[in-house]
Amino acid sequence: MERHFDHDLNELRQRLLTMASHAETAVNRAIEALTTRNYDLALQVKQDDAVLDRCEVEIDDLAIKLLAKAPLATDLRLVTAAMKISQNLERVGDEATKIAKRARDLSQEPPVKIQVDLPRMAGLALAMLKGALDAFVNRDSTAARALIPQDLEVDALNKQINRELTQYMMSDRDSIPRCLNLMVATRSLERIADHATNVAEDVVFLCEAQDIRHPGINQGESVKRNLPVP
Amino acid sequence: MERHFDHDLNELRQRLLTMASHAETAVNRAIEALTTRNYDLALQVKQDDAVLDRCEVEIDDLAIKLLAKAPLATDLRLVTAAMKISQNLERVGDEATKIAKRARDLSQEPPVKIQVDLPRMAGLALAMLKGALDAFVNRDSTAARALIPQDLEVDALNKQINRELTQYMMSDRDSIPRCLNLMVATRSLERIADHATNVAEDVVFLCEAQDIRHPGINQGESVKRNLPVP
Repeated sequence: MERHFDHDLNELRQRLLTMASHAETAVNRAIEALTTRNYDLALQVKQDDAVLDRCEVEIDDLAIKLLAKAPLATDLRLVTAAMKISQNLERVGDEATKIAKRARDLSQEPPVKIQVDLPRMAGLALAMLKGALDAFVNRDSTAARALIPQDLEVDALNKQINRELTQYMMSDRDSIPRCLNLMVATRSLERIADHATNVAEDVVFLCEAQDIRHPGINQGESVKRNLPVP
Repeated sequence: MERHFDHDLNELRQRLLTMASHAETAVNRAIEALTTRNYDLALQVKQDDAVLDRCEVEIDDLAIKLLAKAPLATDLRLVTAAMKISQNLERVGDEATKIAKRARDLSQEPPVKIQVDLPRMAGLALAMLKGALDAFVNRDSTAARALIPQDLEVDALNKQINRELTQYMMSDRDSIPRCLNLMVATRSLERIADHATNVAEDVVFLCEAQDIRHPGINQGESVKRNLPVP
């Protein structure tokens, strides 16, 4: 029984890593489709999203089976963290699909004559996602914690790009619909960095049994106060 | 032991309902702040968001404790559904905070001279959220399933409002920054409806043990194929 449990736990981990690699590929392709105006590549991102959806369902299914086997507290944290990470990866795929949709629209229009630093923003967001998954693999809580402040950099870049696009829209009204497409793509990158942050927080929870999602909240204290003494 | 477990499970349900009521209030206030240009009310939404953050942490904490008590399959589904619903409610709060931020910015500017149907969209999104939580309370899978197609209506309204705002921005470039604020608020409403859809899907999973998040995926089949026979 125990060996089966360890085997299944390992299976869960492997599936999560496979899913992560699909999610990373989707984001990379969506950004490439956007920057190279490649309609077909953008369409492929949309089609491939079903793989991530299936991963999410399968990981949840496996996780629920594992939870039923009454594992240790650390196993419980691993299984619940895996469910949360998988959900975040599925959402990363959704954001990649949104970027790809805008890439398809933009590939059919004349290029916008403004250079915004989308590739840098994509690079930052993807590095965060990769870092968070490496931290998961290595159970490296320090690395996970170090990633979290990087989200501020992505947010700042998002704001800067939005300002630049707003200015440009005001100077050239024909560019408005195309600039709005770019804004949606930028916001998707910003959300991918948010999901990477969530994964990093899940890794900290996995390693330290410490919920750091909302700084300033003293975890569990009020729950304990209100629960009956066992 | 068992009575404690049932008591804690009930506590989990109660906490989720309290959280839901906070989330609903946050969205209502954010929309009111936006439509009545009420800076102070918008600020309050931001401050109150900490309550939802705390709810999420406490519900997760309680859920993990419950999972450790090796419950029945239906209990497992209830606990994992509670964790997912709580996460969705926390995100609803984040979206309310985003709407409130735009309400604050807009309250300091001259009103935009275009009427978009934000109140109707807010009404639809909130009705979906309320319906999903009622379905949870009543374990009403049919009601939960009936909610899901309503998301399409919200999406269509979002697209319509975006088209109207884009047209208006092209006719009056000074309105561009304010219209962009309205677009962000609209998208937040659209996401609130997405979260309501997620909750409805969680209710179906809770009642039917059926994962309907990604239609067309035959749940668990491939997992079972790859797992060792116990």
